[in-house]
Amino acid sequence: MNFRTDLAIELAQQLGDTVSQDYQSVQQKEDGIAVSHTKILTPKGEKQFGKPAGDYITVEVVPFSDSVTDSAREAEVIARQIKFLLPEQDGLVLVVGLGNLSVTPDALGPRVIDGILATRHLAGEWERVAKKDRLRPVAAIAPGVLGQTGIETSEIIACLCEKIKPSCVIIIDALAARSLKRLGRTVQLSNTGISPGSGAMNRRRELSRETLGAPVISMGVPTVADGVTVGCDLLAVEGVSGEEAARTLFAPEGQSMLVTPKEIDLLIDRASKILAMAINRALQPSLTQEELSFFVS
Amino acid sequence: MNFRTDLAIELAQQLGDTVSQDYQSVQQKEDGIAVSHTKILTPKGEKQFGKPAGDYITVEVVPFSDSVTDSAREAEVIARQIKFLLPEQDGLVLVVGLGNLSVTPDALGPRVIDGILATRHLAGEWERVAKKDRLRPVAAIAPGVLGQTGIETSEIIACLCEKIKPSCVIIIDALAARSLKRLGRTVQLSNTGISPGSGAMNRRRELSRETLGAPVISMGVPTVADGVTVGCDLLAVEGVSGEEAARTLFAPEGQSMLVTPKEIDLLIDRASKILAMAINRALQPSLTQEELSFFVS
Amino acid sequence: MNFRTDLAIELAQQLGDTVSQDYQSVQQKEDGIAVSHTKILTPKGEKQFGKPAGDYITVEVVPFSDSVTDSAREAEVIARQIKFLLPEQDGLVLVVGLGNLSVTPDALGPRVIDGILATRHLAGEWERVAKKDRLRPVAAIAPGVLGQTGIETSEIIACLCEKIKPSCVIIIDALAARSLKRLGRTVQLSNTGISPGSGAMNRRRELSRETLGAPVISMGVPTVADGVTVGCDLLAVEGVSGEEAARTLFAPEGQSMLVTPKEIDLLIDRASKILAMAINRALQPSLTQEELSFFVS
Amino acid sequence: MNFRTDLAIELAQQLGDTVSQDYQSVQQKEDGIAVSHTKILTPKGEKQFGKPAGDYITVEVVPFSDSVTDSAREAEVIARQIKFLLPEQDGLVLVVGLGNLSVTPDALGPRVIDGILATRHLAGEWERVAKKDRLRPVAAIAPGVLGQTGIETSEIIACLCEKIKPSCVIIIDALAARSLKRLGRTVQLSNTGISPGSGAMNRRRELSRETLGAPVISMGVPTVADGVTVGCDLLAVEGVSGEEAARTLFAPEGQSMLVTPKEIDLLIDRASKILAMAINRALQPSLTQEELSFFVS
Repeated sequence: MNFRTDLAIELAQQLGDTVSQDYQSVQQKEDGIAVSHTKILTPKGEKQFGKPAGDYITVEVVPFSDSVTDSAREAEVIARQIKFLLPEQDGLVLVVGLGNLSVTPDALGPRVIDGILATRHLAGEWERVAKKDRLRPVAAIAPGVLGQTGIETSEIIACLCEKIKPSCVIIIDALAARSLKRLGRTVQLSNTGISPGSGAMNRRRELSRETLGAPVISMGVPTVADGVTVGCDLLAVEGVSGEEAARTLFAPEGQSMLVTPKEIDLLIDRASKILAMAINRALQPSLTQEELSFFVS
Repeated sequence: MNFRTDLAIELAQQLGDTVSQDYQSVQQKEDGIAVSHTKILTPKGEKQFGKPAGDYITVEVVPFSDSVTDSAREAEVIARQIKFLLPEQDGLVLVVGLGNLSVTPDALGPRVIDGILATRHLAGEWERVAKKDRLRPVAAIAPGVLGQTGIETSEIIACLCEKIKPSCVIIIDALAARSLKRLGRTVQLSNTGISPGSGAMNRRRELSRETLGAPVISMGVPTVADGVTVGCDLLAVEGVSGEEAARTLFAPEGQSMLVTPKEIDLLIDRASKILAMAINRALQPSLTQEELSFFVS
Repeated sequence: MNFRTDLAIELAQQLGDTVSQDYQSVQQKEDGIAVSHTKILTPKGEKQFGKPAGDYITVEVVPFSDSVTDSAREAEVIARQIKFLLPEQDGLVLVVGLGNLSVTPDALGPRVIDGILATRHLAGEWERVAKKDRLRPVAAIAPGVLGQTGIETSEIIACLCEKIKPSCVIIIDALAARSLKRLGRTVQLSNTGISPGSGAMNRRRELSRETLGAPVISMGVPTVADGVTVGCDLLAVEGVSGEEAARTLFAPEGQSMLVTPKEIDLLIDRASKILAMAINRALQPSLTQEELSFFVS
Repeated sequence: MNFRTDLAIELAQQLGDTVSQDYQSVQQKEDGIAVSHTKILTPKGEKQFGKPAGDYITVEVVPFSDSVTDSAREAEVIARQIKFLLPEQDGLVLVVGLGNLSVTPDALGPRVIDGILATRHLAGEWERVAKKDRLRPVAAIAPGVLGQTGIETSEIIACLCEKIKPSCVIIIDALAARSLKRLGRTVQLSNTGISPGSGAMNRRRELSRETLGAPVISMGVPTVADGVTVGCDLLAVEGVSGEEAARTLFAPEGQSMLVTPKEIDLLIDRASKILAMAINRALQPSLTQEELSFFVS
């Protein structure tokens, strides 16, 4: 059975070995926060993971639905991973938030965009007024989903990229995890683009350097798990192979039910704030935390 | 193991027999919609169900997350059940929406209140202006949850009842189901009040004729299921008794995870509109559907 | 003084004559609803109005903040004006909602988009399933405002138009009126595009056949009035010319205060529903009102 | 003509003298923030102001619609005024947010309640867990408006007070100002309760020590101005007495139009956060700013 997950770390754990000729997976702590780095190296590794070769970084955060979190520290560690993945050359960054604002578990992308400091239109104004280093030009858009717009998101983004020629595109999306435990507790970053069929919400077209003409960093937080997958995992623990049973319970109408935690509103609220903070810090190192809060409310 | 559910019908199905000396459960169709009526008769029945004696009615609706629904017909069938449970004498009805507006799966109660036609303050005004039969006096309140107010909901409702002396109280709350399949597809009504420890969201105090001084009708829609319960059900299907395994997967921090469908926003939106429509129709039979839409947007 | 208004009808009333060589303004009733049609004919007319030559239609609706409205009839009359302005040939229509969803008086555009039936991606699916006439292909987008995205709205729309080649673009925006009385009571439609400097919210770039490569229909509802303008009007009624005084009261910081009615939430809610309904009916004449409600909630 | 305003400072300015036998009005700066203190002393003063004898404090803040504000300092100055008005004895405080969450200019009260730290139900838990001084017991409620509930707000609050016996009630409400310049720039506090007929939104019943059985502190921010009043002011500046003209422009349907700034969403957002912060600081001096943010998101 094809376990449905967007998280490279879950696949790595499933494969067992942490290092092989085809991929390597390293775990470490940064400022007390668990960071794992999985690198898929060969076509064989690509096949094992069902994902393109490249870097997959996982930051394990305090559950976003918890009331006591140290957001600033977590944002700092995530910002560091973004910087690691960012191409060296400077220049315009386009931040894209995928998803549907009216569907809470799918609202991560648009909600992050609300918190991004867009600066492309400010040109030299800021430097003149604030007598500070120049800001990195940033554009930000939440294009909506196919069902709302009638236009594939990839079409919208591709034509925008042709127009504004970003040096890098950062794409935020809600993800699917295999394990309920991961929901709202993991941030995944990668430099491989978003491939067809992946994503929590069944989005179809590729968003990558090939289609957009610029390197792509994708970031996401798992917000849903597939009921059938969760059920199969549970049965596997007990040594039973019961996809049929899982399907009966979790796919009543033949279509699998995606589940999300009761605390999904809080999860999305916290996750989108931390991700926006991390992106702003990575892209505007010359601004203090206080200055960033001024501009983005 | 004590399967956690607020639905009498799930308990009845579990008990097996549909009729006994202690309870009876009847299924029928009204206008093509499945309606079940479970009556708990004796203290032994109360013990079997873990619920007070009285009537429990279940209306099975088209999944609230479906886009094609026949809301008007469903509201009509639900309105009929409300009328069946309403005490005969006329008089003021207080409608109470329990829950937290900011937690989507718990927002059912407050959202229903938004759609209730409150008329208590209109006194004779409507009759004079519209030259129509008099309206039944209705008051409506969403008091918030303990964590927001610092006051037990039961305290607020009890003191309001002392003040305005309703002839009947209708209480709306989000419920927990044992089966994922029930989420957003069932409306439960009962005339037994709400007992301590029940409710999807762990609300503690009793709301009943004893505590409020007026007959209580409670209405709810299951919006969450307990992961551990769902897992145990799945294992039971396969003949395995694995509460431990279920607990590992669904209660990562020792605390069971409540899950809700990805489509929870749509579910709450539809469910709250249909319930409000049903209550308005049951309480204001002299108003046409069109007149009701005028007043409640 | 340059009275600030986006409404051709206010300018026509100010000019006095209803017909001249340079423009003509006709008032009539359709289904009991007042419809005015102003046609600017010559460059001199363009100068008098400060607006490009073309058709400007005004539909006077029951105040959107009123609770009793006959939305269906109003939507029908507005749909008729859209059909009048639509180019004859069939083909893809792109609907664009300008404005900022988080600023209530500026949320008209994005809120209308929420109610538009996007069909471009459905291709032949609908016809196959519903055995109905084919749907007109429609795409819909709310691109956000410059301050959020860092990208001029005109850049986003222009590149989308290059990509999807619509046969017509419908643009919805909130407008500024000179008179408080007009707020939420007027729908203006025109076939002249949106010119620089107009619009309630100070948006700058032209959106027209020249920049987008397709005919443009613009639709709007006035949601704000300029305090200084309102004040000057008031003084003029009393025969006083007191821009200074008006400026002191209405432009405390040197920047004029735009005001909106207290009932702005209701106004936007109603206006966006009626406009979306009108657009859907104009673009999909083969669908019944009921079918439209199925698809757009 | 009876100028409609809820702000004592506007009335004081109108009366001319800052000190008389019947009232006194003092202006000063605290931490660079303008604070005025008007004390109405005698029945004659009550008549002149149309307000009960007592203290009226006005804090002039950076416009709430401005993006750069020093919220912490402003909250501190407002907290000091609350402490000045609070009765000396300790004990339960009930915070009440008047208004309608769905009407943006009237949402101040409910939005402040969202940010209040309710502690009444925590009893000794906090002290045990945090090993800190005990928290002051606080309850908080946003009871909704008469049109939604069918119950006078004063009835709800009075019966709650009988039940939970607060030592003090703090009431938050949106206010009407006479001058547009005051909207979103002034916080008024008083210890005289809320009298019939006052309030921006036409709420009718008295909320005072007499009706609630506990001292009442009321706090508010002006969010609307009466168009007719604004117009008359403007004409008065020009030496014209033109209520008729003002009425024609600002009360098209015979009913005066209340206007609010275009930036009302931002205004309400900022104002509610600062007021909640000020109340929390005044009531829980043992908590640091950081601890307060932990509990109230």
